[in-house]
Amino acid sequence: MPTSSQSYPMNGGDDQHSYIHNSSYQKSAIDGIEEKTRQYILKKLDILNLNPDLKTFTIVDFGCSSGPNTFHAVQNIIDAVKLKHLNKNKENGVLPLEFQVCFNDLPNNDFNTLFKTQPPSSEREYFSLGVPGSFYGRVLPRNSVHIGLTSYTTQWLSKVPEQVYDKKSPAWNKTYIQCNNLIEEVTKAYKVQFTKDMKIFLEARAQELVPGGLMIALGQCVPDGVYMYETWPGILMDIISDCLLDIAKSGVTTVEKIELFNLPVYFPLYSELMGAIEQNKKFTIEMMETASHAMQLTNDFITSMFRAVLSTIIENHFGDGVVDELFDQVSKKLSKQPIDFEKCKEHMVYHVVLKRQ
Amino acid sequence: MPTSSQSYPMNGGDDQHSYIHNSSYQKSAIDGIEEKTRQYILKKLDILNLNPDLKTFTIVDFGCSSGPNTFHAVQNIIDAVKLKHLNKNKENGVLPLEFQVCFNDLPNNDFNTLFKTQPPSSEREYFSLGVPGSFYGRVLPRNSVHIGLTSYTTQWLSKVPEQVYDKKSPAWNKTYIQCNNLIEEVTKAYKVQFTKDMKIFLEARAQELVPGGLMIALGQCVPDGVYMYETWPGILMDIISDCLLDIAKSGVTTVEKIELFNLPVYFPLYSELMGAIEQNKKFTIEMMETASHAMQLTNDFITSMFRAVLSTIIENHFGDGVVDELFDQVSKKLSKQPIDFEKCKEHMVYHVVLKRQ
Repeated sequence: MPTSSQSYPMNGGDDQHSYIHNSSYQKSAIDGIEEKTRQYILKKLDILNLNPDLKTFTIVDFGCSSGPNTFHAVQNIIDAVKLKHLNKNKENGVLPLEFQVCFNDLPNNDFNTLFKTQPPSSEREYFSLGVPGSFYGRVLPRNSVHIGLTSYTTQWLSKVPEQVYDKKSPAWNKTYIQCNNLIEEVTKAYKVQFTKDMKIFLEARAQELVPGGLMIALGQCVPDGVYMYETWPGILMDIISDCLLDIAKSGVTTVEKIELFNLPVYFPLYSELMGAIEQNKKFTIEMMETASHAMQLTNDFITSMFRAVLSTIIENHFGDGVVDELFDQVSKKLSKQPIDFEKCKEHMVYHVVLKRQ
Repeated sequence: MPTSSQSYPMNGGDDQHSYIHNSSYQKSAIDGIEEKTRQYILKKLDILNLNPDLKTFTIVDFGCSSGPNTFHAVQNIIDAVKLKHLNKNKENGVLPLEFQVCFNDLPNNDFNTLFKTQPPSSEREYFSLGVPGSFYGRVLPRNSVHIGLTSYTTQWLSKVPEQVYDKKSPAWNKTYIQCNNLIEEVTKAYKVQFTKDMKIFLEARAQELVPGGLMIALGQCVPDGVYMYETWPGILMDIISDCLLDIAKSGVTTVEKIELFNLPVYFPLYSELMGAIEQNKKFTIEMMETASHAMQLTNDFITSMFRAVLSTIIENHFGDGVVDELFDQVSKKLSKQPIDFEKCKEHMVYHVVLKRQ
């Protein structure tokens, strides 16, 4: 069976290969936008004016994974909203706002680790809730969310477009395991799925957010005119698919299995991302910025990061034991021929703030 | 170290010893009150009148464990509230209510199993949220809950009273592992802790519930004049403590370790329970019923049930491997000298409905 409409969380637990120990790349991007998010809230958030009687402020992280980045991101928002509320109500002795934070991810996300590793209740300024469910659909009641955020999530599609498994289709993706932009019809199929998914994502959030509510999104896109196979994540994914073919030769897996494996991942072009956002008329774009990712990378670092992100989906398709063998092979290949980050085309980090009208 | 202010969830996962496969006793009691809860909601729930613009109805199960009883109990409430809302709004085309259900338990509860085993979102009429935190304290915002329920939970104290570990205290509990009412000072220490905990429990719920909101509680208490050592749960617990002493002889554990082990569990007398409820002036008692538990019991059944409930706390104190050995011993002892349920004094199931003024 092809790997399609299933759900694959980041690697749970807290060992060396877990997502919680391999998410500093994502954290670096979150840190980068922290001050801007804070300034935006302080200057422009108008929910508190629209709802002068507001007692509980609800923040949701859509696709939070098992931490710890999510705790950091929500605390930054709470600090800013608190300050804003305090400034506004200096003189009239209003009760302090109470905060609740909803941590959303797929039902098979490792919520146990999330709950065990969150700041203890004595140090937390918010009530903590876990919300299991796909964000490609409603996960919370209408008009219940004041600020939503999502970091590095919507590149995960709800499913792999089916044509890419079909040998008779011009969109057949051969033994590639990602949309690397080498086959035009594959790119087209992924783009169609991405556009559908973003439409559903934004429609669901539009229902969940209160008027004046903010949706803050952080992620990765590709500059117009750049191809995935020219960027380091695209190059690394193609190396992983080469290594799968290598270990197939020694019988650990088969070429047929590799042909039935494609990642439900699509990094949109900048123009595609903007198009997908603009089609939803319930939101106005308050801020849109792009930047290069500021972090210094090494081949070892990106290998560990991709292992934490991909091990669940790889294990699920190929079975136990393949992950170790595969990433040993990837490490060997990279130690002989490391990726030269200087020579790769840049992808972009985007930071967008949308306001619910 | 004595086992005191820690938290010990029911046995997680879904194997033969898990709580989800050993909670039919609790389910039988929940079933017993289903129709009465339903009738009460249909006839007397007035939240919908107090909040005519209500869009989202929030139900919380405090101390839900890992399922499946909780899903059954909340569905019953949702069905009744829906019917009531429909009857009330037959003619004026009001939008249907949306429901959110918060599943609360300690942060080390097995939420992963809870989320994986809940009804799939396509069949669920509510948004599902997990709330990790001790119910002896606030876990949700002020005025945010319409109906709270709690089943077989408040006998779990926030901690064991410390005197029961102190050899010099008249409240020393020797090698007993429960409050079996054989030592008056031990009973007194447990009663003080129960009264404190119930006060905190009810104060927290009073803050979380909206005016007119209901708190439905189901649990077990002891008729005035009956002692725990005369009831089958008390007898079984004393057998478990005897068996701990037996396996200590073979070196699996030590008498010193047993002396440092006491369960944070207290089943109040009926009058103590009523006293604890009545001291909170924010609630009115709308219904209070007691009954005998209707289920036919066998020695095997109660052994499996107690194993599911106690294995985490036993393992935590005595270490790996003791649970198997201990319950083998309990089974042997019971097969030679089974508990005769006919001869035990009855304990009571209570069902109380409180309304937030």
